[in-house]
Amino acid sequence: RRSYSVTLLPGDGIGPEVVSVAKDVLSLAGSHEGIEFRFSEMPIGGAALDLTGVPLPEETLAAAKESDAVLLGAIGGYKWDSNEKHLKPETGLLQLRAGLGVFANLRPATVLPQLIDASTLKKEVAEGVDLMVVRELTGGIYFGKPRGFGTNHEGEEIGFNTEVYSVSEIDRIARVAFEVARKRRGKVCSVDKANVLEASMLWRKRVTYVGLEFPDVQLSHMYVDNAAMQLIRNPKQFDTIVTNNIFGDILSDEASMLTGSIGMLPSASISESGPGLFEPIHGSAPDIAGQDKANPLATVLSAAMLLRYGFGEENAAKRIETAVIETLNRGFRTGDIHSYGTTLVGCKRMGEEVLRSV
Amino acid sequence: RRSYSVTLLPGDGIGPEVVSVAKDVLSLAGSHEGIEFRFSEMPIGGAALDLTGVPLPEETLAAAKESDAVLLGAIGGYKWDSNEKHLKPETGLLQLRAGLGVFANLRPATVLPQLIDASTLKKEVAEGVDLMVVRELTGGIYFGKPRGFGTNHEGEEIGFNTEVYSVSEIDRIARVAFEVARKRRGKVCSVDKANVLEASMLWRKRVTYVGLEFPDVQLSHMYVDNAAMQLIRNPKQFDTIVTNNIFGDILSDEASMLTGSIGMLPSASISESGPGLFEPIHGSAPDIAGQDKANPLATVLSAAMLLRYGFGEENAAKRIETAVIETLNRGFRTGDIHSYGTTLVGCKRMGEEVLRSV
Ligand SMILES: CC(C)[C@H](C(=O)O)[C@@H](O)C(=O)O
Ligand SMILES: CC(C)[C@H](C(=O)O)[C@@H](O)C(=O)O
Repeated sequence: RRSYSVTLLPGDGIGPEVVSVAKDVLSLAGSHEGIEFRFSEMPIGGAALDLTGVPLPEETLAAAKESDAVLLGAIGGYKWDSNEKHLKPETGLLQLRAGLGVFANLRPATVLPQLIDASTLKKEVAEGVDLMVVRELTGGIYFGKPRGFGTNHEGEEIGFNTEVYSVSEIDRIARVAFEVARKRRGKVCSVDKANVLEASMLWRKRVTYVGLEFPDVQLSHMYVDNAAMQLIRNPKQFDTIVTNNIFGDILSDEASMLTGSIGMLPSASISESGPGLFEPIHGSAPDIAGQDKANPLATVLSAAMLLRYGFGEENAAKRIETAVIETLNRGFRTGDIHSYGTTLVGCKRMGEEVLRSV
Repeated sequence: RRSYSVTLLPGDGIGPEVVSVAKDVLSLAGSHEGIEFRFSEMPIGGAALDLTGVPLPEETLAAAKESDAVLLGAIGGYKWDSNEKHLKPETGLLQLRAGLGVFANLRPATVLPQLIDASTLKKEVAEGVDLMVVRELTGGIYFGKPRGFGTNHEGEEIGFNTEVYSVSEIDRIARVAFEVARKRRGKVCSVDKANVLEASMLWRKRVTYVGLEFPDVQLSHMYVDNAAMQLIRNPKQFDTIVTNNIFGDILSDEASMLTGSIGMLPSASISESGPGLFEPIHGSAPDIAGQDKANPLATVLSAAMLLRYGFGEENAAKRIETAVIETLNRGFRTGDIHSYGTTLVGCKRMGEEVLRSV
């Protein structure tokens, strides 16, 4: 039996509910494939703030680093919204990403035929959309220095941040994107603002250079404003999109909303060698927290990504993904994806139905 | 008779064709309202590069500054795409914006009932969308210093830019947004990334502060990633969006594509006191340049914005806008907005039909 340790970080809002479902699904899928998990649970975000006074306790980061993979629920909530920067739940998440060195964030946006009506796009535009955003996650304007507040020449207060990328940061994320595209439809679209920003000029130059190592993958470049348009005009043109941290934040959320079912979308963040971080792309949804209304499928599918990208356990990953599709085919839907003629269920029941199909 | 001077900057690609139509429409609408125009034409972008070696000749900037308003076609083309930064057509446009001090870029995105089928959104989602993006245009990461290329502590090459805003830069764009919202539906949504960026924290603080001067306008705040989603989920929730230069670049293009007819969308860029800059939001479309296929209506509607925001000539502005609607109602369409049952016409003919309705 193969054995892996997984750190569970339920976090805030609906986080605990969805992580609990995903944990059960992971265990059962694993047991079918001869895999055993050792789980430990640690606080992060608002939950950690309330408990320890900081959004990422040292013990949490240490446990995450020592484990084989990390499964996160969601962080944040109204309660901590006006906290100072170093006491924001979001800061805990950024510290975790940096601490784990998970520089590559993979965010698939797939329109499932079962859920196509949930998209606000016309059916013929949404149908068959299947793209992957590879977002740089530990560099750029999120972490660049100098940053802060100061005074300009006129004696006025200013706020400032630095967008910065080095050759090695660009090269390694480009490599991940080309590898990902190779296993998909062999097309990478690199998104930047090289007509204005120096950081983007270096980005474009290096991505082009790394692309030479992947003659079997087709590379194109697009300005970020155009990409924001093309995602709406014709999302099917995209296979793999690679872009920087802030553009990736914006475009991956835009892409996910094209599917109309962001309660279904997982993500994987991987590092050079350490444990990966896996989380649903949706937030903590404080308005429905604790009411057994959340859709656990994004976290369940994040567990599948954990198996695939974290452990190379393709069979177990597929088993979970197939179980999710089967559960949808059997007509079960949480509130966010419910439509006429399907069966409305809560978070727990949805989990039980997935377990039945695993 | 009131008399105004207008600098025409046809620029590249389809620029000359669409500006020529807009000039005629402007003249005729003006003559009906007792307004006279003095036009002068100057080179910018690729056209200027070919002629003078720089993308914004001093004479062009001087002429623009001395006139009462500037009407621009489009800039850029494959030919100059690999030019060095200071020899890019785009650089000429950025220099013009900076030179004129046009810090407030107004970009309406309106779904016309006549063209609703052009949207890739479902009819019930697209119907009635009518929003305005107020984008800060002369600050932020587009112009922030330091910027350039360098070496980091590890001796590696880096590319970097600075996102920076001062109190006065934020205050003045916020004021424009609140004024604009007052004449619309009285709602401002300020978009930032204040959960991560210090520049955004100052942005949010100052917009909130300036908002106190406008108790009749309702202010909300949204993170940029969420805004990119909400524009697709439910664009009708937005009235006036105010945001920084780079987020505005991305979100205004996203918003414009929701309408499905970016060949119809104008923009106005205004300064503290000098002449404004008016231009269609579409690009130079080199693939159809010189073929009499371009849609001139975005530039014609930019001329209407010129009358309204540049000269306060509301009647003449309305006259042009009404003429455009009438022309669409009479069934005329250029290729980009053509659909079954309407009459396909070229750029010139579309101009003639608008003139007939002015
Ligand atoms: C919560 C926030 C800091 C985070 C980000 O901007 O990266 C989130 O939007 C995301 O995309 O995971
Ligand atoms: C051409 C480019 C420099 C410009 C910008 O980024 O501002 C364009 O995209 C726009 O939005 O007007």
